Amino acid sequence: MASLNKLGPAEGIDVLTRTPAVLNALLRGLPDVLVRSNEGKDTWSAFDIVGHLIHGERTDWMPRLRIILESGETRAFDPFDRLAQFRQSRGKSLEQRLDEFTRLRSDNLAALRALNLQNEDLTRRGRHPALGVVTLSQLLATWVAHDLTHLHQLARVLAYQYRDAVGPWSAYLGVLHCGGHSA
Amino acid sequence: MASLNKLGPAEGIDVLTRTPAVLNALLRGLPDVLVRSNEGKDTWSAFDIVGHLIHGERTDWMPRLRIILESGETRAFDPFDRLAQFRQSRGKSLEQRLDEFTRLRSDNLAALRALNLQNEDLTRRGRHPALGVVTLSQLLATWVAHDLTHLHQLARVLAYQYRDAVGPWSAYLGVLHCGGHSA
Repeated sequence: MASLNKLGPAEGIDVLTRTPAVLNALLRGLPDVLVRSNEGKDTWSAFDIVGHLIHGERTDWMPRLRIILESGETRAFDPFDRLAQFRQSRGKSLEQRLDEFTRLRSDNLAALRALNLQNEDLTRRGRHPALGVVTLSQLLATWVAHDLTHLHQLARVLAYQYRDAVGPWSAYLGVLHCGGHSA
Repeated sequence: MASLNKLGPAEGIDVLTRTPAVLNALLRGLPDVLVRSNEGKDTWSAFDIVGHLIHGERTDWMPRLRIILESGETRAFDPFDRLAQFRQSRGKSLEQRLDEFTRLRSDNLAALRALNLQNEDLTRRGRHPALGVVTLSQLLATWVAHDLTHLHQLARVLAYQYRDAVGPWSAYLGVLHCGGHSA
């Protein structure tokens, strides 16, 4: 699969390949007081975020890519359930979920490589149920940026647990002043 | 070193210990188009951020902790140079800088453990040149939150390179709408 420009699918796949190792280094074995704490009502903990990434591997990225290849714009993507992890993570440990994510991501990237996409495939169009027409190239870039948005969120959720402990240094810590508590 | 509360120095040291592995997993070997790109004029690339973290290991955290132990409030901390990395990183590779950070962090955490701080040490006071009186406990918490603020920034800087490529999905990606382009 070649690049359309200097930041193409190859660099994106490089980032996607790294995410399991990044999450393992950051979270595996971390105390529950950090892993299970969130930013307040209706926000996500690190544990919830890993569950959300798993659900994306199962139902979002590769399934949507296949819909684009098979049906183009004629069939809209299935809507993504942003709260599925609260059912699916129940009773599981963070370590189990990290293993699950690592395996699913690896399988998905192997499946993506096996498709042997060509440059002309990157411009294929699909239909998002809310956003309308999107391209396969945009879907791949979004997969990457979605990993990064949740790494960004993870750093913020963990830092939030230190919001009082840092005292006056709070003023210098951008992570404590990031707008909005969504992903 | 015991905890003052459930989120004490032990958990903080756990996070600090992980950061080199997190940065290595995220950045080592990543293409320059991602590592060397920033968010525009006067912003930092991933490469610059690693240099900033190195400078903190050399001149900020443990030196300030020692000033608190040795001089308390009578001697203000030396101001921190937020632009030192632009001189010190020149001509070096990301891989060299990651190795340097890994070694310095390991040495600093060994030195911190060797101090064998007790609960009563955590309330010792020092003087920040701009923020005024701070405690040793706040300094330790800030070391942790500072790692996380730069991980948050790293995710944002990398995601920024995908701001156009994601097309209409931009609306759903919080990392592309984080207020401010500082750390």
